Amino acid sequence: MSKTKVIVIGGDAAGMSAASKIRRSHEDWRIVVYEKSPHTSYSACGMPYYIAGKVSSEEDLVARSPETFRDKYNIKAHTFHEVIQVDPPQQKVLVKNLQTEESFWDSYDKLLIATGASPKKPALPAVDSDGVFCLSTLQSGINTFEYIKKHKPKKAVIVGGGYLGVEMAEALLEMGLNVTLIDRNHYIMKTLDQDMSEDICGLMKKKGITLLLSENLTAFEANESGKVTCILTDKRKIEAELVILGMGVTPNSELAKLAGIKLCDTAAIQVNDRMETSASNVWAAGDCASSYHILKKKHQFIALGTIANKHGLIAGSNISEETLSFPGVIGTAITKFLELEISRTGLSETEAKALEIDYETATIKSSNFAGYYPESGEIKVKLLVEKGSRRIIGGQIIGQRGSGKRIDCIAACIMGKQTAFDLAMMDLAYVPPLSTVWDPIQIAARRLM
Amino acid sequence: MSKTKVIVIGGDAAGMSAASKIRRSHEDWRIVVYEKSPHTSYSACGMPYYIAGKVSSEEDLVARSPETFRDKYNIKAHTFHEVIQVDPPQQKVLVKNLQTEESFWDSYDKLLIATGASPKKPALPAVDSDGVFCLSTLQSGINTFEYIKKHKPKKAVIVGGGYLGVEMAEALLEMGLNVTLIDRNHYIMKTLDQDMSEDICGLMKKKGITLLLSENLTAFEANESGKVTCILTDKRKIEAELVILGMGVTPNSELAKLAGIKLCDTAAIQVNDRMETSASNVWAAGDCASSYHILKKKHQFIALGTIANKHGLIAGSNISEETLSFPGVIGTAITKFLELEISRTGLSETEAKALEIDYETATIKSSNFAGYYPESGEIKVKLLVEKGSRRIIGGQIIGQRGSGKRIDCIAACIMGKQTAFDLAMMDLAYVPPLSTVWDPIQIAARRLM
Repeated sequence: MSKTKVIVIGGDAAGMSAASKIRRSHEDWRIVVYEKSPHTSYSACGMPYYIAGKVSSEEDLVARSPETFRDKYNIKAHTFHEVIQVDPPQQKVLVKNLQTEESFWDSYDKLLIATGASPKKPALPAVDSDGVFCLSTLQSGINTFEYIKKHKPKKAVIVGGGYLGVEMAEALLEMGLNVTLIDRNHYIMKTLDQDMSEDICGLMKKKGITLLLSENLTAFEANESGKVTCILTDKRKIEAELVILGMGVTPNSELAKLAGIKLCDTAAIQVNDRMETSASNVWAAGDCASSYHILKKKHQFIALGTIANKHGLIAGSNISEETLSFPGVIGTAITKFLELEISRTGLSETEAKALEIDYETATIKSSNFAGYYPESGEIKVKLLVEKGSRRIIGGQIIGQRGSGKRIDCIAACIMGKQTAFDLAMMDLAYVPPLSTVWDPIQIAARRLM
Repeated sequence: MSKTKVIVIGGDAAGMSAASKIRRSHEDWRIVVYEKSPHTSYSACGMPYYIAGKVSSEEDLVARSPETFRDKYNIKAHTFHEVIQVDPPQQKVLVKNLQTEESFWDSYDKLLIATGASPKKPALPAVDSDGVFCLSTLQSGINTFEYIKKHKPKKAVIVGGGYLGVEMAEALLEMGLNVTLIDRNHYIMKTLDQDMSEDICGLMKKKGITLLLSENLTAFEANESGKVTCILTDKRKIEAELVILGMGVTPNSELAKLAGIKLCDTAAIQVNDRMETSASNVWAAGDCASSYHILKKKHQFIALGTIANKHGLIAGSNISEETLSFPGVIGTAITKFLELEISRTGLSETEAKALEIDYETATIKSSNFAGYYPESGEIKVKLLVEKGSRRIIGGQIIGQRGSGKRIDCIAACIMGKQTAFDLAMMDLAYVPPLSTVWDPIQIAARRLM
């Protein structure tokens, strides 16, 4: 009997987590990875900090290189290899070597599609000018870093006030650039409610960022040498020597779609809780695949490293013939803008309304540490409960040091179906330099008991 | 019908939380508080930071003063008033005014005993010498602070390596004193397991603290003017100009005991989940009362501000004739020693063994933030699960900034009866400056799946 052969398309978080898991379970299986970029297993989330010069080298962003996979895991990770066709009935994939331009078919027993997501790039005039960057692959981060080093731009425009936009605003501000952030929505960070978002806007303005809301990008302008000079919106023209597009991402599901594999309505590849697609012997994981949202009770497209890693582990386990089910996600996310930590989990008020859930909410302001402790600062917590059951269904936190990761306890409460009373009475940790005697999340919970 | 009259014995966390709750529920009830010290509602936990000079004034440690209670809550809080006898059948208490030495009887409809706990002070030669301090009341903190300011001691001995001992070690070290810490146990911080405790010992030694373990205090020596000069142990004599006793506390339950109220085997006042004592119309709350330990399934004596506040709220609700049940505690605690954050919840390995629980454990070392982020440091997580169910039953964390409060998520998992797999798959928050992509507690959980 020949050894089982697994092909993995995509060598980042989901793909390589799965490949490593399969290797741990089956020492003798053949595992081949095709990755079109030069890199495997890198931290895309680290890009803003790399661009800001906080990371010594791009190599630090690579968790494990192709050489490590080859030498330590006996996994062949072929970089510069793009899979251009998948044939599930024949169990084979068409691969193009991007360096030699040669193509070849390779066959599999089991296939994992982990093709990730791509940044949205609007089809607008001069969008491809030099100095306009989307951040997605490690290479795009390196390109941005090199461009800034070479051209020393002074005026930057960030399009989109989501997580990447906010993180890049911090990075460029700390590098001394003049930053304008535009967003088509009437407030930034729209996974938060507006009342929470306003605290971030306040700090941004205080730090000198020009914030333009409810404003749509319409075009770019470039000079004769092809370098961006300004962007145009529906309201004005803004000078720009550097433009960062943080307009969200779309799942790279085209390959799966062409192979007849079912997509969900967000265009992500539809998977069940074992990361199985609609095709036999084909799994999908990471940014290209859907995630079941436990509170919304439907499949969603959420592109996050945390989820990609979990997808990868679950897919790898099931490919290895060990049954593990992914419980789903609740939309937890966190970021940081200068001294402000910003996090959220579960449903926002906006989402609860859209789902017609009968909810109650409490928002409190407190202190991250004991108020008398020298380094203490503000924290604001918003909590949502379902009206009848009093179960916690969402939380949002904005505050100084130590605030953001408190969201994890709220996430655990949502997953444990705990009520506001349960949280208020929970035995949480207190010492003056690190908390208040009633943790701020408990102060909010008490209001909803 | 005359208005209900509530007497509260003890004006700190539990007593005043209850009094405030009762006032919020019943605007017209008479609420009288007797407190033997000069202060109400102060942060005993803040004392080490106050002594270290990090808190501008002792007034900052007082959350609410007697005047605030009088003016804002219509609660009469009599300081310098000690209750010296309780008579449940007659529903009255004998009160001594410590300033006038007069005594008087006062009657109640409902009584709350919130007398707190007192530090253990061994009956050893010269224990009452000047320069030997127990830290409990705010006044004891002020006395210690003043003594150090006046006498500028250079050599300090701390007896007991529990939370207070570790916090005072930090305080005295930062003030430039030469610090010796002695503990009768063979490792310090015995609510942790020894393998975790050793990391703290390592840092203490590195910072120049002399650590003497398995060593018993036997006596003190003082000079002619009554000032301490050294302590004696079963192994040696140690020079000391300042001695801090952190040898634990005992519940102040004598008053209740004399009144025939039932105590539990830890000498704390036995209460049910509504904080009712064995006597009619008498409740108890805070450090003097027992707490049900959810995992140990028995009543315990745990003296902590977090628990005292919850006790107070529950007692106040039930005194107000609103039924609320206290779910109990799981032994969560946290402290900090210089850059190390130290926390624990649930059962330690030692406790699990004593309870004959079939458990498994995993200990991992990881990074508090993304390893490539400039300020990242080490974190060590130990997790315990019950063998059959895989439910999480305990956690211990030691690490750099941002490590300690991660224990709250483990506490929520214990309360939610979640398994290692549930925690590993939980949607926790990640951004490189604040976490790793698999949170360290999830890395530990993965080992126990």
